[in-house]
Amino acid sequence: MTRKATFYHAGCVVCISAEQGLAHALDPAALSVEIVHLGKDRSRIAEAEAAGVVSVPAIVIDNQAFHINFGASLADVRGAA
Amino acid sequence: MTRKATFYHAGCVVCISAEQGLAHALDPAALSVEIVHLGKDRSRIAEAEAAGVVSVPAIVIDNQAFHINFGASLADVRGAA
Repeated sequence: MTRKATFYHAGCVVCISAEQGLAHALDPAALSVEIVHLGKDRSRIAEAEAAGVVSVPAIVIDNQAFHINFGASLADVRGAA
Repeated sequence: MTRKATFYHAGCVVCISAEQGLAHALDPAALSVEIVHLGKDRSRIAEAEAAGVVSVPAIVIDNQAFHINFGASLADVRGAA
């Protein structure tokens, strides 16, 4: 049974590099990775924030937020309507 | 054939959490992950720096440095003899 991982991004260059380099390198036998574009799916910003995400790109695994480099703050993603 | 990934850390709490949560979740079929403790293996600090690592924990995949949260700066790791 795979655990769930959620990769939050906002389409930025740093985000795409982290998605391709890291999110796609996770073990599919262990983790089921969902990719969420917070710029497009703004209803999930609150969920990311609740999981401890403060900037994107970030990946949440087992309720732990791992921020990967720095693309944009969640406040900026929220602000960019 | 697996590509090489190098996870650099310094034994800090943030480092260990990233190692267990993220480095161990990488696909073993795609990546061969080497774990390097820069506090113990100080001769490799320069190599990490050359790969673009500025803080630990960080993972280098295909010459790209991904910093995961923030444990300590490389300067601090270098300074702590």
